[in-house]
Amino acid sequence: MTSTPWRGFASDNYAGIHPEVLEAIAAANAGHQVAYGEDDVTAELGAVVKTHFGPAAEVYPVFNGTGANVVALQAMTRRWEAVICAGSAHVHVDEGGAPEKGGGLKLWTVPTDDGKLTPALIDTQAWGFGDVHRAQPGVVTITQSTELGTLYTVDEIVAVAEHAHSLGMTVHLDGARIANAAAALGVGFREFTTDAGIDVVSFGGTKNGAMLGEAVIVLNPDAAPGVDYLRKSTMQLASKMRFVSAQLLALLGGDLWLRNAQHSNAMASRLESLVRQIDGVTIVRPVQASAVFAVLPPDVTQRLQKRFRFYSWNQATGEVRWMCSWDTTPEDVDSFAAAIAEEIAR
Amino acid sequence: MTSTPWRGFASDNYAGIHPEVLEAIAAANAGHQVAYGEDDVTAELGAVVKTHFGPAAEVYPVFNGTGANVVALQAMTRRWEAVICAGSAHVHVDEGGAPEKGGGLKLWTVPTDDGKLTPALIDTQAWGFGDVHRAQPGVVTITQSTELGTLYTVDEIVAVAEHAHSLGMTVHLDGARIANAAAALGVGFREFTTDAGIDVVSFGGTKNGAMLGEAVIVLNPDAAPGVDYLRKSTMQLASKMRFVSAQLLALLGGDLWLRNAQHSNAMASRLESLVRQIDGVTIVRPVQASAVFAVLPPDVTQRLQKRFRFYSWNQATGEVRWMCSWDTTPEDVDSFAAAIAEEIAR
Amino acid sequence: MTSTPWRGFASDNYAGIHPEVLEAIAAANAGHQVAYGEDDVTAELGAVVKTHFGPAAEVYPVFNGTGANVVALQAMTRRWEAVICAGSAHVHVDEGGAPEKGGGLKLWTVPTDDGKLTPALIDTQAWGFGDVHRAQPGVVTITQSTELGTLYTVDEIVAVAEHAHSLGMTVHLDGARIANAAAALGVGFREFTTDAGIDVVSFGGTKNGAMLGEAVIVLNPDAAPGVDYLRKSTMQLASKMRFVSAQLLALLGGDLWLRNAQHSNAMASRLESLVRQIDGVTIVRPVQASAVFAVLPPDVTQRLQKRFRFYSWNQATGEVRWMCSWDTTPEDVDSFAAAIAEEIAR
Amino acid sequence: MTSTPWRGFASDNYAGIHPEVLEAIAAANAGHQVAYGEDDVTAELGAVVKTHFGPAAEVYPVFNGTGANVVALQAMTRRWEAVICAGSAHVHVDEGGAPEKGGGLKLWTVPTDDGKLTPALIDTQAWGFGDVHRAQPGVVTITQSTELGTLYTVDEIVAVAEHAHSLGMTVHLDGARIANAAAALGVGFREFTTDAGIDVVSFGGTKNGAMLGEAVIVLNPDAAPGVDYLRKSTMQLASKMRFVSAQLLALLGGDLWLRNAQHSNAMASRLESLVRQIDGVTIVRPVQASAVFAVLPPDVTQRLQKRFRFYSWNQATGEVRWMCSWDTTPEDVDSFAAAIAEEIAR
Repeated sequence: MTSTPWRGFASDNYAGIHPEVLEAIAAANAGHQVAYGEDDVTAELGAVVKTHFGPAAEVYPVFNGTGANVVALQAMTRRWEAVICAGSAHVHVDEGGAPEKGGGLKLWTVPTDDGKLTPALIDTQAWGFGDVHRAQPGVVTITQSTELGTLYTVDEIVAVAEHAHSLGMTVHLDGARIANAAAALGVGFREFTTDAGIDVVSFGGTKNGAMLGEAVIVLNPDAAPGVDYLRKSTMQLASKMRFVSAQLLALLGGDLWLRNAQHSNAMASRLESLVRQIDGVTIVRPVQASAVFAVLPPDVTQRLQKRFRFYSWNQATGEVRWMCSWDTTPEDVDSFAAAIAEEIAR
Repeated sequence: MTSTPWRGFASDNYAGIHPEVLEAIAAANAGHQVAYGEDDVTAELGAVVKTHFGPAAEVYPVFNGTGANVVALQAMTRRWEAVICAGSAHVHVDEGGAPEKGGGLKLWTVPTDDGKLTPALIDTQAWGFGDVHRAQPGVVTITQSTELGTLYTVDEIVAVAEHAHSLGMTVHLDGARIANAAAALGVGFREFTTDAGIDVVSFGGTKNGAMLGEAVIVLNPDAAPGVDYLRKSTMQLASKMRFVSAQLLALLGGDLWLRNAQHSNAMASRLESLVRQIDGVTIVRPVQASAVFAVLPPDVTQRLQKRFRFYSWNQATGEVRWMCSWDTTPEDVDSFAAAIAEEIAR
Repeated sequence: MTSTPWRGFASDNYAGIHPEVLEAIAAANAGHQVAYGEDDVTAELGAVVKTHFGPAAEVYPVFNGTGANVVALQAMTRRWEAVICAGSAHVHVDEGGAPEKGGGLKLWTVPTDDGKLTPALIDTQAWGFGDVHRAQPGVVTITQSTELGTLYTVDEIVAVAEHAHSLGMTVHLDGARIANAAAALGVGFREFTTDAGIDVVSFGGTKNGAMLGEAVIVLNPDAAPGVDYLRKSTMQLASKMRFVSAQLLALLGGDLWLRNAQHSNAMASRLESLVRQIDGVTIVRPVQASAVFAVLPPDVTQRLQKRFRFYSWNQATGEVRWMCSWDTTPEDVDSFAAAIAEEIAR
Repeated sequence: MTSTPWRGFASDNYAGIHPEVLEAIAAANAGHQVAYGEDDVTAELGAVVKTHFGPAAEVYPVFNGTGANVVALQAMTRRWEAVICAGSAHVHVDEGGAPEKGGGLKLWTVPTDDGKLTPALIDTQAWGFGDVHRAQPGVVTITQSTELGTLYTVDEIVAVAEHAHSLGMTVHLDGARIANAAAALGVGFREFTTDAGIDVVSFGGTKNGAMLGEAVIVLNPDAAPGVDYLRKSTMQLASKMRFVSAQLLALLGGDLWLRNAQHSNAMASRLESLVRQIDGVTIVRPVQASAVFAVLPPDVTQRLQKRFRFYSWNQATGEVRWMCSWDTTPEDVDSFAAAIAEEIAR
């Protein structure tokens, strides 16, 4: 606790709590409240979520993104059903097998170039309906914005949802960075979720400036029965829930979610612009939200990582990921870009 | 968020965050920190935990008590093993089936009068070793203090642990209220855990004054391999872990854990004394920690619950539970006792 | 394969294949048949099962009783539901934890004297509906004839089913020895299953004279969706299913099921009569089907087990179990009874 | 049971029981035998398996191939580990999600051209060791002969096993058609399993002429603890096990396994030769065991399927699979080849 504060480009999980979120936690800390979600703050959050996602939306705060996904996908599948996802989906590659081990979920993965599913890509796994030998495709899950920093347009989501529904499947949206997506698209949440045919959302608060807090938001109640029970049995039910809800309310009650998301998106854009002027670095994916993916010479990466934290994304290709967060400053970006230029020039 | 603050006797989960814990969260909120536990605060917590539980102790912060238990018990069992617990154990009756559903754990339950296991009671389920038809008893789990407000003495825990170990089993302690137990016993954690033969502890911070935070503490590393992996796959790994660790550190770094526990125990004791003077109420279990269990006429309970929140424990017998927390005041207790007397006199 | 044939009283699983069942296997062994149940024999079995259980009955052959139970109970529960069973139920004590480990099923157990549930006993666990902390009671499972050799009357089953249904639960009958029950009651299967309100049956063929073969029989399709998928994912789908179906058809197509069951019941009755004449042995449970439970002096048990195989049921009380099977002969029974008398007299 | 016998090329599961296997079942049907594997026949099978796989080999008969795989892979993995397999592996595509749903197993799949893994292909998933976000690669599973009718050479298996072991992983071989592989390679089982570094085998009896019977064969006991317990909890423990063991013994006790495998391989080879002479059909994969994969015009496939049963393998490419079995006759092959020629000529 005594080390000097620093900032890097490794992960939006390295950032702390936005001051307004911390204030909201403190404000909720008065007297007793009924535990497990029967509190006033959670009730207010429920009302606010309806303003964002429509009157049918029900919000179930949980602890983390993996938990949100596993609760949602369990609710959306019968015991014999499976989930279609991109090969790069967090639910497949980064959750330690939680969906399979904790939820008994089978994933049908689809290789993609950009982390995005399309009707045609879905069709590569959406078959074998009625064949008992094939875990039955029941849900399509997409990530918005994706793990590769890309973005679905509203129309692309509509197309995915219509196609999935036409095959009798439902659609889940992993929104660990859903605020960045909304900010980048310039629309509200509802336009690319409820109105686009999404059935259930994993809403991400942590990367958006919270201390800790995500939510399962059910848009189509027929598609996800039992979320309240499954949240408990999946170990995602907070006893003092008001403090999780207060954080989400701090983000969603006003425009903090948007300010934070716009800011981190803008920082990524600034970084992209500066880096594009440096010879020897290649931006390798569209910069559509808060992440920049680039290819660097390995020795440059090594030297640079001694000065700034960031992740090597693919050792084989030399691809790295630079992630901006709500607390990244223009100065951070500028000095990082300068450091890149220096290390390349060395 | 605008309702008037109130306090009741329903649950120590209804209480808020102790101010020192909230300060610690704020203090940890500076700059970036590596996510998922590689941060400075978590490192400091690790050192502090060793001062309490011995140099071999390793701490793994998690979100909630159900999560702590399921992570710990998974780590302690091979796929074919089962867990012996009291019939009143939280892990059996209050976790929505999480051990079975999320962890594939079989529970062998033992009826008890007071929530406490003994070697003889363990033997009612610790048999069939080597018989493939019987899920193999692998772990004994005890709760300290118990769900019924009772306490194991140090010697009783030693006896349980020696017996379990002699049968090739290991021992888990569900310490959702472990601080209350230590305070009531007047000893440190180590005396009734590490030194008594406990292999793994679920350490409870939330009821002790935290916003949200528990931990799996491994005392015997051979007994619980893979906790780091299982914490992730059981959806209990916080990304911004420093803020969970900061809370546990606020409790354990000084004597806050003890002050809070002594206080709630003292409030329960005060309530017991006052209630014992009221005719028509019977205290039905030893008051050894922070809970008071009593039997009241049903109509009294009904009227009283309109004035103060508390749980009906057993509809058939009229038993109710009154739980004190770190923020219960002497005035709360006195006015509650007065209300009991009033409603009985009516 | 060269050891001398012998017979004992340990288990009806120690007996071999009834000759008519073996003939049926051989008769089904002509040319190719579509695998996985799309064969002619399975189709014929389906028709025959309807004659026994009513026109809505659908039969799903599986490998063994544990498999039948786990498939059935998974189909009957949503992910957050639990199963109420007697503490002596096979599904709880003798399946190696398969329901919990393979099916994610939580069991709420009820102590009984005679292995039988009643509405009042069910009520000891059928509560907490709507409480997310309690795995929701969804199914009641009863065993007929029970693991303790006792029998539900038709009326008793009706009472259990009506009560369970009134609480929104469904009812499963573990019929590992269902033929013995029907024979003992002197009624067809339908009277105490379909007509009594049972929703799903695990039908036992193996103990009734088959080589290997049980079935999930769904009587109320609304109560058990997805059995075909779950049979596969629970590893209970035979590729060359015709040979499992042929065995069940050999039993159910004529009266072989009844002959075998009546015979083993009669042998148990004969054994009971003879044993009641021997001083020093106490029959401790009603002999209502094919099992006799008795208490013997431990040294007698030990000497007797060197001459005939049978199980010690409870070391503490000296209780033993003697099980008769389709191939037990009157001579077997008489010489066993004589041996008991001899060893007691020694 | 009254339909006319026929034979096709759909699946080796459509074939019946080899007469010698049926005789062995009948021969085992004398008197009582201890249930659940403590019988004489299973003991004899254990000895015979050691002659094939080496003195350390332990055999655990099970019901079906999915069961064998799930038991084996559970035993080989700790709760946090995962399994690397080819994208075409039966365990991934054809088991209804049993590994994930019943065993909590995460599969890391690798696309292949020919169904075969190599060290380089394994490396595409064998990474992230020590990273808690990644389900830890613990086992590599290969299929021999593969689902695509191809064969690993002994050297190829040695290379896979050495590579996996060098990374701390163990190796499982799915031998649903292991006899066909041995026959095709012209070696004993041991050369490409025990001696090649395989740790555990799923041994297939059903496709080799049994009625129903497979086995988990543990070659390296350190790699697979608890198979006896897991066989029970995975619902794969036969009560009258002698009859499953008798079938495997009939195959392995003499040379029946080899005769049946050589025959079905020879029939596939005969079919390949004849088809290669027909214009308009393309054999698209090496015919190395008992399967022939070809591409046909869709209308030819449709007409042909009205005369002989076989599977369409890939609707998009027009690929079909023709599988030979132990009971396929040269006349079957010749008339099928003639029918292909006829339908193409039409």
